[in-house]
Amino acid sequence: MSTQSLLLVLDLVGILAFAVDGALTAIRTARVDIVGVLSLGLVTAIGGGVIRDVLLGVTPATFQDWRYITTALVGGTLAFFLSRQLTHLSRPILLFDAAGLSLFAVIGATKAQEMGFGPLQAVLLGAITGVGGGTVRDVLLNRVPTVLSANSHLYAIPAMLGAAFVVLANVAGFGTGLVAVVGALVCFTVRILALRYRWNAPLPPGAPPL
Amino acid sequence: MSTQSLLLVLDLVGILAFAVDGALTAIRTARVDIVGVLSLGLVTAIGGGVIRDVLLGVTPATFQDWRYITTALVGGTLAFFLSRQLTHLSRPILLFDAAGLSLFAVIGATKAQEMGFGPLQAVLLGAITGVGGGTVRDVLLNRVPTVLSANSHLYAIPAMLGAAFVVLANVAGFGTGLVAVVGALVCFTVRILALRYRWNAPLPPGAPPL
Amino acid sequence: MSTQSLLLVLDLVGILAFAVDGALTAIRTARVDIVGVLSLGLVTAIGGGVIRDVLLGVTPATFQDWRYITTALVGGTLAFFLSRQLTHLSRPILLFDAAGLSLFAVIGATKAQEMGFGPLQAVLLGAITGVGGGTVRDVLLNRVPTVLSANSHLYAIPAMLGAAFVVLANVAGFGTGLVAVVGALVCFTVRILALRYRWNAPLPPGAPPL
Repeated sequence: MSTQSLLLVLDLVGILAFAVDGALTAIRTARVDIVGVLSLGLVTAIGGGVIRDVLLGVTPATFQDWRYITTALVGGTLAFFLSRQLTHLSRPILLFDAAGLSLFAVIGATKAQEMGFGPLQAVLLGAITGVGGGTVRDVLLNRVPTVLSANSHLYAIPAMLGAAFVVLANVAGFGTGLVAVVGALVCFTVRILALRYRWNAPLPPGAPPL
Repeated sequence: MSTQSLLLVLDLVGILAFAVDGALTAIRTARVDIVGVLSLGLVTAIGGGVIRDVLLGVTPATFQDWRYITTALVGGTLAFFLSRQLTHLSRPILLFDAAGLSLFAVIGATKAQEMGFGPLQAVLLGAITGVGGGTVRDVLLNRVPTVLSANSHLYAIPAMLGAAFVVLANVAGFGTGLVAVVGALVCFTVRILALRYRWNAPLPPGAPPL
Repeated sequence: MSTQSLLLVLDLVGILAFAVDGALTAIRTARVDIVGVLSLGLVTAIGGGVIRDVLLGVTPATFQDWRYITTALVGGTLAFFLSRQLTHLSRPILLFDAAGLSLFAVIGATKAQEMGFGPLQAVLLGAITGVGGGTVRDVLLNRVPTVLSANSHLYAIPAMLGAAFVVLANVAGFGTGLVAVVGALVCFTVRILALRYRWNAPLPPGAPPL
C-alpha cells in the first residue's frame, strides 16, 4: 500500500470514528431523529476540516470528496441503529476519537504549512482540524463545547503538541511520512495519558477547583 | 417574463418568507431589539445560501446582491412592526416557509451540480441551502435547531427529496426549468403533507416515543 | 509614523482589547481552562474579521498575519492571569471595547468598498467586523449574543453609523485617512453616550419594557 493510500485509509478511519462519536453524542444529549443523528455525525466528522479550509481560503476538501461524506454517513447510520450496544463501548470509542484527533491534527498542520502559512497558524490549524467538528456539534446541540470546558482532559493540547512536532520537523527539513506518524503518536499518547490519569489544563487563578 | 426573471422572483419570495419567519421566531423566543429582529431575519433568509457557497468555495452570492439583502430587511421590518398581527397568520407563514424551503433546495442543488460537484454533494447542498438559515438563527437564539429535532415534521427530508429529483433529472439529461419546478413541487408537497399529518422521521431504536 | 503603521497599531489595539474582553467574559460565565480562555479571546478578537472575509470571498486576513494572532493570545494570557484584577477595570475595558468596535467597523467597511462591494454591504460588513467576534464567543459560551439582546446599549448601531459615515464619504469622493478617523470617532462617541445614558434600540411593539 502506498503512503498516499495509507494516509487516505487513516483519514477515513478518523472520519468514521468522529462520525460515530458525534452521532452517539447527539442521541445521548438531545431528542433527535435520524436526520439529526446523521447530520451531527457528518458535522462532527468533516466540520474541523471545513473550518480549516475556510481559514486557509480554499474550497473545503472534506466536502468535495464523496468518500469522506459517505464514510461519515455510514458511521452515523451505524450509531443510529446500534446506539444501545455502542454506549457500552465508550472506551474503544474514546480510543478511536483520540486516533481521529491525532490524524486530523497532523493532516491539518501539514496542509497549512504546504500552503505557505506560518508555524503559528499551522499549529492552530492542526488543533482546529482536530477539535472543530466536535465544537460545531456541541454548538448545534446547545452545549458549551467540550474543548473549552475545564474537564476536557486536555483535548486541544495533545492536538497542538502533535501539530507542533510536525511543524517543527518540517521547518527543520524532515518532511517525511515518518514525521507525520510520530506527530500523530505524540498527540495520541498524550491524549490517552490525560484520559487515564485525569489530567486537566490549568484553571484561571481563583477559580474553584474541579 | 423570462425564466431568469421568474427564478429571481421566486428566490426573492423565498427570501421574504424566511426573513419574516426568522424575525417572528426571534420576537417569540428571545428578548431582542430591532437590531436583533432584523439581524435574525437576514440570517435566516440568506444564511443557507452563504453556507452553501462557502462549501462550494465561492463568494457568497446572496450577500453580493443588494436585492436579496434589501428583501430580507423588508421582511424583518414587516415582522418587527406587525408581529402581533402576524402571529395569527402562522398557517400562511408555514406555507411561505415551505415555499422558501422548496425553492432554496432546488436552487442549491442546481448550483452545486453546475459547479461540477457530485450528486451526493448536490443533494446535501440543496438541503443545506434550505435549512441552513434557520439553523444559524436557532444557534444564535440558543436553541437546538428545528431541523435536528425529533418533532420537525421531516423538514430536511422534503428538501433532500426535491434536491434529489433535480439532481437525478440533471444526471439523466433533463436539464430544463420544468425539472426545477417539479423538484420544488415534490419538496413542497411532502413538507405540507408532513405538517398536515404530523409525520416525523424515525427516532433511534429505544428512544422514548414523542 | 506613516498612516499604514498607525492603522496597524490601531488595529492591534482593537485586537488586544477584544481578546481581553472575550477572555474575561469566558472566565466570568463558564467553567473554562486556559485553552478555553485563550481560544475565546482569540475568537473574539479575530472572529469578526474572519466572517467579513468569508463574506467577501477572500482568505481571512486576520488569520494570515501572525501579529494579529500573537496580540490576541497575549491579550488572552493577560486576562487569564489577571482576571481578578481586571474585573475591577470594567470601565476601561468598555472603553477599549468601544475603541475596537469603532476601528473594526471602519476597517471592515473600507475593505468591503475597496473590493467593489456596494454601500449596503459595506455598512453591514463594517458592523459584522465589529460585532462578529463577540457573537461567535457568545455562541460558544452558549449565550444569546449580546448584540442581539434588548439591553445591548445599541452596540451594533454605532458600528453601522461609523461604517455608514465612511461609506458615504468614500462614495462622495473623500477617500482619505481623515474620513476613517472621523468615522471611528462617530461610532466611539455614540457607543459611549449609549453606555453612559443607557440608550437602547426600540423593542417590538407590545414587548414588555425593560
